[in-house]
Amino acid sequence: MSVYGGIETGGSKWECAIGTGPDDLRAQVTIPTTTPSETLDRVVAFFERESPVEAIGIGSFGPVDKKLGSPTWGYITSTPKPGWANTDVGQQIRRRLMVPVGFETDVNAAALGEHRWGAAQGLDTFCYITVGTGIGGGGMTHGRLLDGLVHPEFGHMRIPHDHEADPFDGVCPYHGDCWEGLASGIAILERWGRPPEELAEDERVWALQARYLALGLVSVICVLSPERIVLGGGVMRHPQLLPLVHREVVALLNGYLESATIGDGMGGYITRPALGSRAGVLGAIALAERT
Amino acid sequence: MSVYGGIETGGSKWECAIGTGPDDLRAQVTIPTTTPSETLDRVVAFFERESPVEAIGIGSFGPVDKKLGSPTWGYITSTPKPGWANTDVGQQIRRRLMVPVGFETDVNAAALGEHRWGAAQGLDTFCYITVGTGIGGGGMTHGRLLDGLVHPEFGHMRIPHDHEADPFDGVCPYHGDCWEGLASGIAILERWGRPPEELAEDERVWALQARYLALGLVSVICVLSPERIVLGGGVMRHPQLLPLVHREVVALLNGYLESATIGDGMGGYITRPALGSRAGVLGAIALAERT
Repeated sequence: MSVYGGIETGGSKWECAIGTGPDDLRAQVTIPTTTPSETLDRVVAFFERESPVEAIGIGSFGPVDKKLGSPTWGYITSTPKPGWANTDVGQQIRRRLMVPVGFETDVNAAALGEHRWGAAQGLDTFCYITVGTGIGGGGMTHGRLLDGLVHPEFGHMRIPHDHEADPFDGVCPYHGDCWEGLASGIAILERWGRPPEELAEDERVWALQARYLALGLVSVICVLSPERIVLGGGVMRHPQLLPLVHREVVALLNGYLESATIGDGMGGYITRPALGSRAGVLGAIALAERT
Repeated sequence: MSVYGGIETGGSKWECAIGTGPDDLRAQVTIPTTTPSETLDRVVAFFERESPVEAIGIGSFGPVDKKLGSPTWGYITSTPKPGWANTDVGQQIRRRLMVPVGFETDVNAAALGEHRWGAAQGLDTFCYITVGTGIGGGGMTHGRLLDGLVHPEFGHMRIPHDHEADPFDGVCPYHGDCWEGLASGIAILERWGRPPEELAEDERVWALQARYLALGLVSVICVLSPERIVLGGGVMRHPQLLPLVHREVVALLNGYLESATIGDGMGGYITRPALGSRAGVLGAIALAERT
């Protein structure tokens, strides 16, 4: 059985793993995100030190250039993260480690992981959405990863914002109160003055959060008609949140979309990732398999 | 060359045509939408009277059941249009005319028409959106028509609604101020008391309309990352509207999505249908070709 490498790049850390799947990870390392050259040197050193791999998959924070044939394929492009704009990741890994490289958005990689081994097995059209520091979305249509002119940026949809009920202006440097601007982990921290994990007891926090998440999910449902939505990320770890989101989505759809799947209280329709926080790096391994 | 039939079903009229494409339509008829049995009898009579066809494509108003293998495949399902809920269209046409039948949403059929002969030729991922009596959207990802759990319902996304600037509550019987509820032709009529064609001189009307359309388009762009958006329907015939929509979309994206295509003033990115109001029935013929 061939052995693959996976890299999940993140704004605070990079996860690297070598193996064949969730039950067979032979080496793993977490590398803090510092400068591009230092971070990439450590990644390269890890793969040079460990067993050889057939191919490497990379799921990256972005925006990224994943257009095959583009001169900047494999780059992180216009990220606001200091020092990281226009950073070559994919081509550098390919050149330095001399292996085929697959390059995707972090959320598409996580979607692929859930499709290969997790909560989206056997589905043709589904979404993976992460609600953490930011909000990102990926997924598949017709069994292929979402793609297009650039790549999806679910987090930057606009949603209704009642300024009277919630005078908070939002945290997105580009759009203020877009979905991510209102409902990301950073938005929660800035609005309430404390991080989500310190607000567990405050029902107002989670009622508002569920409402905002549901408003964005309804747009995703109306545009893509996914067969399932896998909803991950740190903010979703709050145990009361997912049931509240289910209730809000049902209320917002108001019976319009007839489907036994949706009607069924949403429990199977909007669901947690089966791979948990490993969806990204495992998805990167699944991407390597396909490369 | 094989000859195909196309049917575009609508809430007020059905368009039927026989031919091979936009430059070779051999017979056409417009049938008013009355009762299901009367309307379908006239459609069947048209095809029986005219030359035989290899197959028939149907692009239908909905919601519809287009799941292959479903017992109600080819049905118009939960439409609020009186008398038309749970009406068998596709199976009846196939049985009575004894030809293969392809069945799609009206907007997916129009998208297919634009892909085959119009403004979306050669694209893999694009949308066709119609702004008329209602708002509907279809399109392709990876060269295949949008599909999923049910089918897309772009019109029922929620968008920001500033009740102070626009106290109008929206016209959607399910959701009030969803995208269709705020920005469809009916919404314009109800909000301003006159139909869009009598409001040509009123700049407030078109500024607000462009804003609402752009808000929905941004959600579509963030979820699908289409290579192009074809924007048709009666409301879009107002000549000042499309340039205003371009401006609003650019303002809302605020430089976040880097792409030469989007940056270029939007003229080639959000565009009119090349087949005009014939996109639907021609798309139905293109659907028959594929059946």
